[in-house]
Amino acid sequence: MSEKSIPYKIYLSEDEIPKQWYNVRADMKNKPAPLLNPATLQPMGFEDLRPVFCDELIKQELDDTTAYIDIPQEIIDFYKMYRPAPLVRAYCLEKALGTPAKIYYKFEGNNTSGSHKLNSAIVQAYYAKKQGLKGVTTETGAGQWGTALSMASAYLGIDCKVYMVKVSYEQKPFRREVMRTYGASVTPSPSMETEIGRKINAEHPGTTGSLGCAISEAVEVATKTEGYRYVLGSVLNQVLLHQTVIGLEAKAALEKYGVTPDIIIGCAGGGSNLGGLISPFMGEKLRGEKDYRIIAVEPASCPSFTRGKFAYDFCDTGMVCPLAKMYTLGSNFIPSANHAGGLRYHGMSPILSQLYHDGYMEARSVEQTAVFEAAEQFARVEGILPAPESSHAIRAAIDEALKCKETGEEKTILFGLTGTGYFDMVAYQKFNDGEMSDYIPTDDELNKSFATLPKVEI
Amino acid sequence: MSEKSIPYKIYLSEDEIPKQWYNVRADMKNKPAPLLNPATLQPMGFEDLRPVFCDELIKQELDDTTAYIDIPQEIIDFYKMYRPAPLVRAYCLEKALGTPAKIYYKFEGNNTSGSHKLNSAIVQAYYAKKQGLKGVTTETGAGQWGTALSMASAYLGIDCKVYMVKVSYEQKPFRREVMRTYGASVTPSPSMETEIGRKINAEHPGTTGSLGCAISEAVEVATKTEGYRYVLGSVLNQVLLHQTVIGLEAKAALEKYGVTPDIIIGCAGGGSNLGGLISPFMGEKLRGEKDYRIIAVEPASCPSFTRGKFAYDFCDTGMVCPLAKMYTLGSNFIPSANHAGGLRYHGMSPILSQLYHDGYMEARSVEQTAVFEAAEQFARVEGILPAPESSHAIRAAIDEALKCKETGEEKTILFGLTGTGYFDMVAYQKFNDGEMSDYIPTDDELNKSFATLPKVEI
Repeated sequence: MSEKSIPYKIYLSEDEIPKQWYNVRADMKNKPAPLLNPATLQPMGFEDLRPVFCDELIKQELDDTTAYIDIPQEIIDFYKMYRPAPLVRAYCLEKALGTPAKIYYKFEGNNTSGSHKLNSAIVQAYYAKKQGLKGVTTETGAGQWGTALSMASAYLGIDCKVYMVKVSYEQKPFRREVMRTYGASVTPSPSMETEIGRKINAEHPGTTGSLGCAISEAVEVATKTEGYRYVLGSVLNQVLLHQTVIGLEAKAALEKYGVTPDIIIGCAGGGSNLGGLISPFMGEKLRGEKDYRIIAVEPASCPSFTRGKFAYDFCDTGMVCPLAKMYTLGSNFIPSANHAGGLRYHGMSPILSQLYHDGYMEARSVEQTAVFEAAEQFARVEGILPAPESSHAIRAAIDEALKCKETGEEKTILFGLTGTGYFDMVAYQKFNDGEMSDYIPTDDELNKSFATLPKVEI
Repeated sequence: MSEKSIPYKIYLSEDEIPKQWYNVRADMKNKPAPLLNPATLQPMGFEDLRPVFCDELIKQELDDTTAYIDIPQEIIDFYKMYRPAPLVRAYCLEKALGTPAKIYYKFEGNNTSGSHKLNSAIVQAYYAKKQGLKGVTTETGAGQWGTALSMASAYLGIDCKVYMVKVSYEQKPFRREVMRTYGASVTPSPSMETEIGRKINAEHPGTTGSLGCAISEAVEVATKTEGYRYVLGSVLNQVLLHQTVIGLEAKAALEKYGVTPDIIIGCAGGGSNLGGLISPFMGEKLRGEKDYRIIAVEPASCPSFTRGKFAYDFCDTGMVCPLAKMYTLGSNFIPSANHAGGLRYHGMSPILSQLYHDGYMEARSVEQTAVFEAAEQFARVEGILPAPESSHAIRAAIDEALKCKETGEEKTILFGLTGTGYFDMVAYQKFNDGEMSDYIPTDDELNKSFATLPKVEI
């Protein structure tokens, strides 16, 4: 098909919304390692996980053989509110860069939660409701996940309790108000409502909290409150599964115009967006049908892939959650102040960790100032104000496109634009005022954190 | 076509973006009255307006006979970045209301400026560039227009100077930062940079500014700076013309499914969204081909249509701008603190004023708390967090749908959802905390303001 006939935005029709999620684990020879019980360090089965997660979601978490899993019709109907998400040909960016590369991005920010998180939030809320539960608990840092879960819960009419890292609660009051508008209760963490919150407040008076602490509080409330379960917005296998709607739609849209990407790029925090985007392409690669360069982009300030260890570690700093085998900086690692809030997690999806370990993908880290430079350039020509997290992928996409300019290669680049930056203007202001700084942890810092990794023999 | 086959979102393809704007004045028997020179009170022609506006835009402003005006290809290409905008069937809202009414809304918030304002911003910036100008000046209150013009100017590579009402500049720092990210200079108004700004600051020390004052500053800078012109985001005939892409797309999308609306609803501040949405439908009504109920919805705190006078008045409080014949509360009218910032204008589009005066449309006013109740209900079931301005239309649409529930009538309602509320969370917080209040100006207040209307014999 000729170049000219590819529109700026490729919209699939509603009946082209995927009817099944694709489970990439089915095509992996080396499966991701099982979650371990934090007390016994033994692999966790269905019954072990029931106090924390919804039954159906545990099944999805543990299933590493079924390649396609049906999406319930009720969820497809919800998806219709904001999906299919557009696949955009970045004609204006290509022109601004003067590159022969062809750049596409899958834009997941066209819904009020502002990111792809809604794709999994509605699923987790749906199964909670179907199980007859009253509500769900979760933590949120930057706020995208909390907003998404609030929206999904409001739609289904179930309760939603969000533990929001105290510093974000205070610095991002607007995020908090969006969640409240959707009827969620939002509590700054650490709170005095939970045992662990009181303990942390006593041990660290005046602490502004952390994601790890908020997770611990949300899990405690879920396990101690009749009719509640805990839900999580990234890292878990089930979340990557739900997010494959991103990749499935992107692939279908490209195929409609006979386009095959050479390079696929996504930002990586816990891995939900990256995993969702690349899964169907990775499946072809794993089955030896096609080859793609796949690049994970992470902040230099929190470099799990590029400088972490592939080891069993706790998913939370409170060490009450299961252990996962993943690329990790150590559950005690505290990333420096970095505005790309959603990428400040010490660990990484076990699925992506295994794939990276096995050489199926690359990873690179980028510094914050360079990320915002890319964000600003993108915003001015493509019109969309990107989230700082998403802008890590933009940075790498621009860098690859500029390499093509040097070499004259007409590569096709696909990247994931996970969300919008409307609630990140404090960070943009710092950038606009020339007050943004970069930070890379020293080897000493990382080694100190690695020293606390649990000893697991399995 | 059967009910079931209508999707949640009707997307036109890119080649269905309108290629011409529709000029409703061509079908009006009673044309809107001409603008008057503020010094001579005589009608203004092309030459009179040249120091302030771009040439091509003046032609559009004065042309009340050409029904269709070509959209330049460069503007159509820009429109492709975010248009066609979706026409959404509000299935979820209908279900929540239990109404037999069929509700559709044209959603204009899926672009970073967050509203329909971008439709005219790109046109005005385009003609400024084409005329060889260096840049444009404007004012902004709530910030949607300033953001849109910043985006358009960044895309075209021309300068953009925004005078932002000081109280908004301070209370909406994030809006300001979006504009700065797009490279605009943003100055709190009244400033010390202009003659009128210094005068106002001297006369009213500590003033937090007003839209009228910011307009006067922007006009002064445009007329005194080589290579600059002033642009405005509403009220003017040219702006309504550009905004007809909203109505043309909505009409085409409905016709694709054989749907004819019974009631068309839009919020009304200066009239840009309402005029753009209704124009093609109004054309049919004016030509006697079809009939529609058309409803303008305005805040009870700033009721130009429902309690204003149809008279010549100044467009700004500084009384340096042309006079327009319109429904007005008097250019000295200061609306009470009302969070629907974009609807706080004392006047109204001369085109819509004439149409309302001639009985072609209805108007109603609604109170703020009821507006936010509608906004919250809408957000929870339709997923989109609406702007306070847009929510005036939601309120009226819900009210009409509830009437249908009583009567059992299956009316088809179309309303304009002009934008998103991400930068209005202070207002949502007040609502969430039960601290929102309503205010309706007294007859005495209005009469005082009417007493200052200029005496014009024409």
